[in-house]
Amino acid sequence: MTEIRNQLQQAFIHPAEWSWTKNGAHQGRVQHWVHTIEKWEKSIEQIDAVILGLPLSRSSISVSGASEYPLAFRKGWKGFSTYNIDESIDLAPLNVVDLGDVAMHGTDIVESQKRIQQAMEAVLQAFPSAITINIGGDHSVTASAVRGLKAVTDNETIGIFQFDTHLDLRDPAENGPSNGTPIRQLIEAGVVKGNHVYNIGLHGYFNSPDLIHYAKKHSVNMITLNKARQQGIVQTVRRALASLQQQVDRIYVTVDMDVLDVSFAPGVPASTPGGMFTHELFAALLEVGKHDEFKHIDFVCLDPLKDESASPTVKAGIYSFLQVLSGVIITRNQINGT
Amino acid sequence: MTEIRNQLQQAFIHPAEWSWTKNGAHQGRVQHWVHTIEKWEKSIEQIDAVILGLPLSRSSISVSGASEYPLAFRKGWKGFSTYNIDESIDLAPLNVVDLGDVAMHGTDIVESQKRIQQAMEAVLQAFPSAITINIGGDHSVTASAVRGLKAVTDNETIGIFQFDTHLDLRDPAENGPSNGTPIRQLIEAGVVKGNHVYNIGLHGYFNSPDLIHYAKKHSVNMITLNKARQQGIVQTVRRALASLQQQVDRIYVTVDMDVLDVSFAPGVPASTPGGMFTHELFAALLEVGKHDEFKHIDFVCLDPLKDESASPTVKAGIYSFLQVLSGVIITRNQINGT
Amino acid sequence: MTEIRNQLQQAFIHPAEWSWTKNGAHQGRVQHWVHTIEKWEKSIEQIDAVILGLPLSRSSISVSGASEYPLAFRKGWKGFSTYNIDESIDLAPLNVVDLGDVAMHGTDIVESQKRIQQAMEAVLQAFPSAITINIGGDHSVTASAVRGLKAVTDNETIGIFQFDTHLDLRDPAENGPSNGTPIRQLIEAGVVKGNHVYNIGLHGYFNSPDLIHYAKKHSVNMITLNKARQQGIVQTVRRALASLQQQVDRIYVTVDMDVLDVSFAPGVPASTPGGMFTHELFAALLEVGKHDEFKHIDFVCLDPLKDESASPTVKAGIYSFLQVLSGVIITRNQINGT
Amino acid sequence: MTEIRNQLQQAFIHPAEWSWTKNGAHQGRVQHWVHTIEKWEKSIEQIDAVILGLPLSRSSISVSGASEYPLAFRKGWKGFSTYNIDESIDLAPLNVVDLGDVAMHGTDIVESQKRIQQAMEAVLQAFPSAITINIGGDHSVTASAVRGLKAVTDNETIGIFQFDTHLDLRDPAENGPSNGTPIRQLIEAGVVKGNHVYNIGLHGYFNSPDLIHYAKKHSVNMITLNKARQQGIVQTVRRALASLQQQVDRIYVTVDMDVLDVSFAPGVPASTPGGMFTHELFAALLEVGKHDEFKHIDFVCLDPLKDESASPTVKAGIYSFLQVLSGVIITRNQINGT
Amino acid sequence: MTEIRNQLQQAFIHPAEWSWTKNGAHQGRVQHWVHTIEKWEKSIEQIDAVILGLPLSRSSISVSGASEYPLAFRKGWKGFSTYNIDESIDLAPLNVVDLGDVAMHGTDIVESQKRIQQAMEAVLQAFPSAITINIGGDHSVTASAVRGLKAVTDNETIGIFQFDTHLDLRDPAENGPSNGTPIRQLIEAGVVKGNHVYNIGLHGYFNSPDLIHYAKKHSVNMITLNKARQQGIVQTVRRALASLQQQVDRIYVTVDMDVLDVSFAPGVPASTPGGMFTHELFAALLEVGKHDEFKHIDFVCLDPLKDESASPTVKAGIYSFLQVLSGVIITRNQINGT
Amino acid sequence: MTEIRNQLQQAFIHPAEWSWTKNGAHQGRVQHWVHTIEKWEKSIEQIDAVILGLPLSRSSISVSGASEYPLAFRKGWKGFSTYNIDESIDLAPLNVVDLGDVAMHGTDIVESQKRIQQAMEAVLQAFPSAITINIGGDHSVTASAVRGLKAVTDNETIGIFQFDTHLDLRDPAENGPSNGTPIRQLIEAGVVKGNHVYNIGLHGYFNSPDLIHYAKKHSVNMITLNKARQQGIVQTVRRALASLQQQVDRIYVTVDMDVLDVSFAPGVPASTPGGMFTHELFAALLEVGKHDEFKHIDFVCLDPLKDESASPTVKAGIYSFLQVLSGVIITRNQINGT
Repeated sequence: MTEIRNQLQQAFIHPAEWSWTKNGAHQGRVQHWVHTIEKWEKSIEQIDAVILGLPLSRSSISVSGASEYPLAFRKGWKGFSTYNIDESIDLAPLNVVDLGDVAMHGTDIVESQKRIQQAMEAVLQAFPSAITINIGGDHSVTASAVRGLKAVTDNETIGIFQFDTHLDLRDPAENGPSNGTPIRQLIEAGVVKGNHVYNIGLHGYFNSPDLIHYAKKHSVNMITLNKARQQGIVQTVRRALASLQQQVDRIYVTVDMDVLDVSFAPGVPASTPGGMFTHELFAALLEVGKHDEFKHIDFVCLDPLKDESASPTVKAGIYSFLQVLSGVIITRNQINGT
Repeated sequence: MTEIRNQLQQAFIHPAEWSWTKNGAHQGRVQHWVHTIEKWEKSIEQIDAVILGLPLSRSSISVSGASEYPLAFRKGWKGFSTYNIDESIDLAPLNVVDLGDVAMHGTDIVESQKRIQQAMEAVLQAFPSAITINIGGDHSVTASAVRGLKAVTDNETIGIFQFDTHLDLRDPAENGPSNGTPIRQLIEAGVVKGNHVYNIGLHGYFNSPDLIHYAKKHSVNMITLNKARQQGIVQTVRRALASLQQQVDRIYVTVDMDVLDVSFAPGVPASTPGGMFTHELFAALLEVGKHDEFKHIDFVCLDPLKDESASPTVKAGIYSFLQVLSGVIITRNQINGT
Repeated sequence: MTEIRNQLQQAFIHPAEWSWTKNGAHQGRVQHWVHTIEKWEKSIEQIDAVILGLPLSRSSISVSGASEYPLAFRKGWKGFSTYNIDESIDLAPLNVVDLGDVAMHGTDIVESQKRIQQAMEAVLQAFPSAITINIGGDHSVTASAVRGLKAVTDNETIGIFQFDTHLDLRDPAENGPSNGTPIRQLIEAGVVKGNHVYNIGLHGYFNSPDLIHYAKKHSVNMITLNKARQQGIVQTVRRALASLQQQVDRIYVTVDMDVLDVSFAPGVPASTPGGMFTHELFAALLEVGKHDEFKHIDFVCLDPLKDESASPTVKAGIYSFLQVLSGVIITRNQINGT
Repeated sequence: MTEIRNQLQQAFIHPAEWSWTKNGAHQGRVQHWVHTIEKWEKSIEQIDAVILGLPLSRSSISVSGASEYPLAFRKGWKGFSTYNIDESIDLAPLNVVDLGDVAMHGTDIVESQKRIQQAMEAVLQAFPSAITINIGGDHSVTASAVRGLKAVTDNETIGIFQFDTHLDLRDPAENGPSNGTPIRQLIEAGVVKGNHVYNIGLHGYFNSPDLIHYAKKHSVNMITLNKARQQGIVQTVRRALASLQQQVDRIYVTVDMDVLDVSFAPGVPASTPGGMFTHELFAALLEVGKHDEFKHIDFVCLDPLKDESASPTVKAGIYSFLQVLSGVIITRNQINGT
Repeated sequence: MTEIRNQLQQAFIHPAEWSWTKNGAHQGRVQHWVHTIEKWEKSIEQIDAVILGLPLSRSSISVSGASEYPLAFRKGWKGFSTYNIDESIDLAPLNVVDLGDVAMHGTDIVESQKRIQQAMEAVLQAFPSAITINIGGDHSVTASAVRGLKAVTDNETIGIFQFDTHLDLRDPAENGPSNGTPIRQLIEAGVVKGNHVYNIGLHGYFNSPDLIHYAKKHSVNMITLNKARQQGIVQTVRRALASLQQQVDRIYVTVDMDVLDVSFAPGVPASTPGGMFTHELFAALLEVGKHDEFKHIDFVCLDPLKDESASPTVKAGIYSFLQVLSGVIITRNQINGT
Repeated sequence: MTEIRNQLQQAFIHPAEWSWTKNGAHQGRVQHWVHTIEKWEKSIEQIDAVILGLPLSRSSISVSGASEYPLAFRKGWKGFSTYNIDESIDLAPLNVVDLGDVAMHGTDIVESQKRIQQAMEAVLQAFPSAITINIGGDHSVTASAVRGLKAVTDNETIGIFQFDTHLDLRDPAENGPSNGTPIRQLIEAGVVKGNHVYNIGLHGYFNSPDLIHYAKKHSVNMITLNKARQQGIVQTVRRALASLQQQVDRIYVTVDMDVLDVSFAPGVPASTPGGMFTHELFAALLEVGKHDEFKHIDFVCLDPLKDESASPTVKAGIYSFLQVLSGVIITRNQINGT
């Protein structure tokens, strides 16, 4: 059999190559750079960042396929290089490990959210020094992940740095632990204080007066897109991060992809006109990655089933993820004097 | 103000006419024939059939917008007449009342299913002689509705008459109360016996061997589409209904729209090639409605968000609903000697 | 019956809620803020703005579903709040009344256009102090509406302030009263003078040399998008409005949504690359609303049947409408010293 | 210049070949078989059939791009051979001439319909022995074409042989000369008698009770699809044609493509489930063409803008057209003893 | 590291499970039943069938993504069970091995075709008793595969059993080794004789007169769909196979998926109206598999990039593949007396 | 016959008008301004620019319909005027001649590329003073065209001015003469030197580290979009062109439409987020045309089959083409003192 197999090897492409695995032929592709946890053989300390898939979107107010994003995100890697031509840097030196997806319950949303929280705790304990990158799922996963963060780092104050068109401050008592309520859940549970929430990208007519009222009452920091553009988006992010860092021990960054203009993100059901352009978000996320205490981020609400055929939204999602890591490596290089 | 309003009445179309309400101008449309419960003024006994919307599809294994079907179903009425040209009958004499949708919980699926059961109970008690027509939602709603039926009619034996490409016998222990498990839920809960389940429309490679094994063990009656076609679909339905009626007190008919061929039902995510044609299903449902003890039916798993632009699937769904009522009126006319 | 109805009320959502009506639960949504004329109970003087639907697009040169926009416009309201987060203002204090649609003739386009003119006259007489907001329909409706305006205000000079990629100066003798000719119809009929027309947003290769020739001959003010961008779009609008106001008694603003870049407005068949971005149009319209003599506006040529699934164009249309009203309230607040 | 042109001829494909013109290279394609009137050089008597494009659909009740069908119809020819493999015949011997499109007025629907009538008259006078094939446009063109037929053949009795899901008997007084009223227009104008109308393909719930009432009152012959299938569609057509021919001097066949099932004809906005299958319509039209007094036909209501990307509906439209001509040639061959 | 990995195993789904590999949890799925050659550990004799991917469609006359089908085919397996409910058989006992794809050259089509031929030869030599199942690619791959078959079995006479809307007899001298010429290539090269080609499914106007002429001259057996339907499709296949088997030593079956009606196979660019229905093809292929000397088959011209969102065509492709194997197992069971 | 033809002329639109030919009625449209070579009657010296269609995309790495762009490009002309409203100039005085398409071989890619090279040589010899405008096809056509340019102008140094998201420097030894390798082909063949290549528009993660390495080694000038934006895109183009012109005798400009952001160019399969906006490319191309030694340009990789229904990408392609010619005429006018 082995002989035949060898004979055939000339003629056939190995089916295993259809999936994303280390492979000599296409060096420099993101799919071959990210490690799977099964194949990681060095020490834990050498892991720079871990990826967790959080495929939950039954919790979405409107019908959402954001649960399919973790898979689409990985499948899209094959279209991306590790080399960032804008910054003339290669991400290859970073050790990024993909832990896989948290297993969701078929129908029990609260159970699924508990599992996300537990997974987040396990990951933080297992990889205390790594950056955690959560790939949602809808925005409800942020509440679960931050709860996990709080559980592990109990004496620390946590801040939320949010890119979003919405405040996500609806009342959980009415809506349950859905994608409309995560920030309010965290405020009401005492996990995060309202004044430790910064939201950048708000615009237009997409937040009800009562939510605005709640946000003001709890001193949520609302920075509209217009304001950010006037002051420079990168500068706004830098200052806001610095300001938040002074008040808290640890920052959790959450990127609701609906912050993007609907023309750039047709694959985010709740995206709107008048939103952020992709190149603005990319610049903002580079700045986030550069922040020297950057540790936690999630990307949520991207529904690949609604994306257009050229996959603009999934591509923007992967680009966003890489921008953060570019920021990380730039700061490291500066520290290391490279 | 009134004067101005009157003056303007000549020029403007009244916004209220945009929705589906009784209106002199378009007599004979389904939208003006179905009564809303608010406007029903005759006695309860005169109600022939009630419609319940069950907008739950968070419970679906794959992402589903079947929760949007009850609304799409009603919106589509405006394209349908009450006159059945094939049978030369007008449905107008039937009194059909739309009760609206059961209010779903935002994130608690089990709670939502409990509400469906309770609503079913309330409806059966309020309108004991009316036909109940449930508009899903995914197939999990069938389990809830039949539980409600059982609760109200406890000493009665209930049979299930199912049109489906799938057995829906997955294990609830593994999958929860999802759209893959409703029939097994009912069997395991003792609500329905396996041999009181008839499934028509099975075909191809869409049921795992273990589910076949379970079905055989519990004597579920599996009638493949091929068999039904060989013997005539209408005849098959007639005989199967007669056979089931002899064994049970009450039959609940459930129509999983994925029984249709995917070319006829692109708006049912799980539909497959080799399935039933629409005119076959229409003929089968006419026969169902003719059955003299016909009382309960549901239509499930139609996701209008996935339908094509000419709305073939939603149109097929409404057509199916009307066919059942045509059957009802034909039998009544025969009984009344009309 | 009433008792049963009450009993059921717990379980069911009221079908009437499917349409847009005042409702306690979702306060702050545009759909619950806009009044229908039937339910308006205060005095006419308290009405700040009236909405007229003008569902005519048989008159379009190419096949157009712009006739469906008035309905899509209203249906889309449920996705919008009355709160403008950019300007920190709530539109709720404005009294906006929806008069419904002008009833169109089935096949007689000229008759339909006459009805639009008559409706416009009736509205101007009934609500002399209200802002009128016309929702087209294709651009031919502008000619009819301005004719109505002229008829009621005969001794006033009318100016046209147009956002458009096209001049709409085709020859009515050749093309009839179509969407290619409205401005020329008005010039030829002596309703408006060419030098009282300002067109902002022109760009590219979308106007024939002979139309340019006509425009120059009649001193139509052509401000290209490039020019407007160089000088600032908001400033350009402000100055142009001021300049036009000095020459005329009354300004009618017409927004052909094809002024938008095709990437932002796929639902406008005639939109082109190189057009205005949505945030630019939104800023321009805020400025329009701020203009202290602002009274009349229409939005035309948006075909919701051609919009993409995330509805970017319809959303942009509603956003545009709200921006104008934001401008109005800002100016009122300034006048009132709020 | 000529020399250079010759030199280049080797390398370049002649742009003129992009359109449909006689050309040596692709013999046997429909596009090279149909003659344009400009290039026709033989006598008029040798013309077997003429094609008229009737690009009017402003008259459609709902938004329709059927006006684009005459062009799409011709563009699609390049995918079709003249050889009918089912019947082993080549259409090539038939002389078919394309007269082009009747020029429509930009906005005056009644004027456009008058032009259709006049064109029909001109054609009948110019080509008295040729078969006329009208390519709509919406169903309103049938009324105009039959009026033209009546004008030219005044002492003849005309019958209508209709394939349709609808009766098209709405009241012109209410709806104008739209695509919902053509048959009633003709009956009311005394051009055609109700009992000289045969409609095959009716099914389901797509005709209001009042239209049924009108049809019965005027003795319109309604043959449902179900009935036709039970008796054989081909046989039904044969018998109905024979029966109609006995009563009238001349038959005008009108094919509303919405007679087709929506799964086969997504590009016909009004098509429905439960309709005719394409192979059934093809067989029926072969029979129509075989009818020895066959002279006039139209194909209406196909909107190529709504077709799917593989163009199933436009392809079905062209196939239908060719089937009729296959029928014609079969009968001729029989007569000629070929 | 191992410990952490184990700890995490509870929470995370293993990324390797995203691809198709043996896995305890979902027994009975096609993806876990087909073996990859790497994991095959029994003897070669025990292999019943081998799958080869032939991802070539640069050779297609019109733009085709059929090169993507081998991957889409495998990805789609997860939606299929190994149990055939129509025939009450489980395919599980068959040993089917997926060899992977033949590696194509980037731009040299002839080189790619040579590799297909060589791979076919290698496979036939390595697995002389196994059924070979080729997954194209466009129809040009058939010429290459049959050439490979001829090379290995030189003294045998080969017959072609073709399901197709087209004859695929265009002139290679003009068109090169494209998807329009495979059968003629084989006839001209003396690999196959014209009278040893049976084509079932021909219909309509999709073959030029000159190709018909060529087919008749070479005695190609043309069985139209109409004829096959009149005589029963299954019976027609049975008789034609028997007749061909009497004349040749070995039959190669080629299924051009464009034999299917365009409504059932939107993902085959060349499919047409009036084609075969999926259930007819499924029945025909079951019969093919039952044929006791069945050995070689390919499926070509399915372009998954053009399929609709519910994947009707890819699903039909997989269903077709399974039908053939069902036929095989039925015949084996009969032989074995099971 | 002539008489009848004349009679009918009133009623019918001449079929020839459906294609793009000189025609009195629509003066000022691009389709009537561009000459076909057949109808050109003046001297060769008076031709300002020639258009060559290069419909080759079998050579594309991924499935591409760019071969359909030359036809779609011409069909789209009817939506464009010759008047540039931004620059107040009419392109009408330029004599532009469309030579048609180079005839491609059906399956032999290398042969097709040879024909492109030969056609380019023939054109350069026939029209030595005309601007050549090549309409691809995929990016492989650039290598062929530049080879042709080199052959004719052998003692001249050629520079490449490239708008692209990619370097197109993959190894031809591995990939063949595909759309990933054209620039490297030219460098390796000694046709162009690496330091004579300027690439503007690079951004993000779309070039592998090894290609970056190759580019640096060969001194390819890489100007990222970010850099160009910081310094002004127009200024960047002007300076880069000037710099390149100093080093070479002749510049060939190649525009890979994937330089555009995917939101503006959904019809370019390889386009990405973070790319150039259409108005930026338009401004850049105006500058290119203004360059006083501008002679050669191509536009490649636009796949009209993937464009959205409003044709944003094809429209952007035509707009781009016109911008270059606007630049040409502006410079001529300046030289002529107009």
